[in-house]
Amino acid sequence: MSRVGVVLSGCGVNDGSEIHEAVITMLELDKAGAEMVLMAPNIDQMHVVNHYTGTEMDEYRNVLMESARIARGDIKDMAEVSSRDVDALIFPGGFGVAKNLSDYAMAGAECSVNPDVMRLTKEVHEDKKPIGVICIASAMMAKILGEKTEMTIGFDEQTGNDIDVMGAKHILCPVDDIVIDMEKKVVSTPAYMEAKSIKETAEGISKLVAEVLSMI
Amino acid sequence: MSRVGVVLSGCGVNDGSEIHEAVITMLELDKAGAEMVLMAPNIDQMHVVNHYTGTEMDEYRNVLMESARIARGDIKDMAEVSSRDVDALIFPGGFGVAKNLSDYAMAGAECSVNPDVMRLTKEVHEDKKPIGVICIASAMMAKILGEKTEMTIGFDEQTGNDIDVMGAKHILCPVDDIVIDMEKKVVSTPAYMEAKSIKETAEGISKLVAEVLSMI
Repeated sequence: MSRVGVVLSGCGVNDGSEIHEAVITMLELDKAGAEMVLMAPNIDQMHVVNHYTGTEMDEYRNVLMESARIARGDIKDMAEVSSRDVDALIFPGGFGVAKNLSDYAMAGAECSVNPDVMRLTKEVHEDKKPIGVICIASAMMAKILGEKTEMTIGFDEQTGNDIDVMGAKHILCPVDDIVIDMEKKVVSTPAYMEAKSIKETAEGISKLVAEVLSMI
Repeated sequence: MSRVGVVLSGCGVNDGSEIHEAVITMLELDKAGAEMVLMAPNIDQMHVVNHYTGTEMDEYRNVLMESARIARGDIKDMAEVSSRDVDALIFPGGFGVAKNLSDYAMAGAECSVNPDVMRLTKEVHEDKKPIGVICIASAMMAKILGEKTEMTIGFDEQTGNDIDVMGAKHILCPVDDIVIDMEKKVVSTPAYMEAKSIKETAEGISKLVAEVLSMI
């Protein structure tokens, strides 16, 4: 049974993991008979957003604790996970990737990446295990891997350009499809960077999960 | 296009909506071409649970604001929704149903139900529109409808007995199936009352959504 690490970044599109993308990833992995290793870094969120009004709240929340909501409690502190524990790694999107796992939302192509995310991703990549990146997670992966790795966030010009500036190679891609870098073993899909509905998001993620599992 | 109200109760199985059940309901509705009217009452959560440790946190959160995380912001205050706005109503499960939408988790068969939940559910039921109840939501629906309405929470003896005590009729049901009360137009499925994995939860919810839509 393949063990796939799923890296969460909080719980909610504006300050954490995009919930639909995370749940659909889990559903597709379970349907395919894969075991999930859910994880998140044990750090404070950059901030907390009221998802009803869109405004910032005067609150502190922890990325691991909030991610545990999506995981129903079955989640690991990412600091305790190494490449030995997984056969592949998938990053759902959401602003949490660009605010908590990295600071791409603030720093763009000059962003830095959380040390645990950087360490585990590099370990997994060096072990030639596949990596799936959904939605804005591609931008962070461009920073981590560079090396002209081919990946997509859909059609957004600014983000696509940032991906190229960070040393990866952005490929245009519709919402229901995936971009595969066979050599680097990186699979990506635009999801809510392009999706108008949850069904559209599911189409690309379903293909991404199947492709990642086939590379193991 | 059918408009289906989906009532959320927060964001996280232990103090709000069960996230997987809510997202799978939305995915199935979207796949079927139905329009969603997401809603939640604008009230404080009973409490806040740290989903990583399982312990209570010294915090306050609002049911509508937290539900908005699952809804990506596109959610209505339930007080502003009437039966005219929907062709059917679905309640995903999670402890939020038994802690925020009602106090079933504390009071059992003696529970009371949030006034807006009570009002809208009765309006929808009196207008002979179908209602879907997932997981523990059946227990709350037993309190609201009574009248020997047939429904399930799976095989849990205590909850099944409470449903009977509240005046409805509990029917045993495996996780991948649904119970249909044709006359009352109520459809139910055990979901995480029985499910061992997200895939199992999805099987019952998929059938429930299809049945609810067929009754419109």
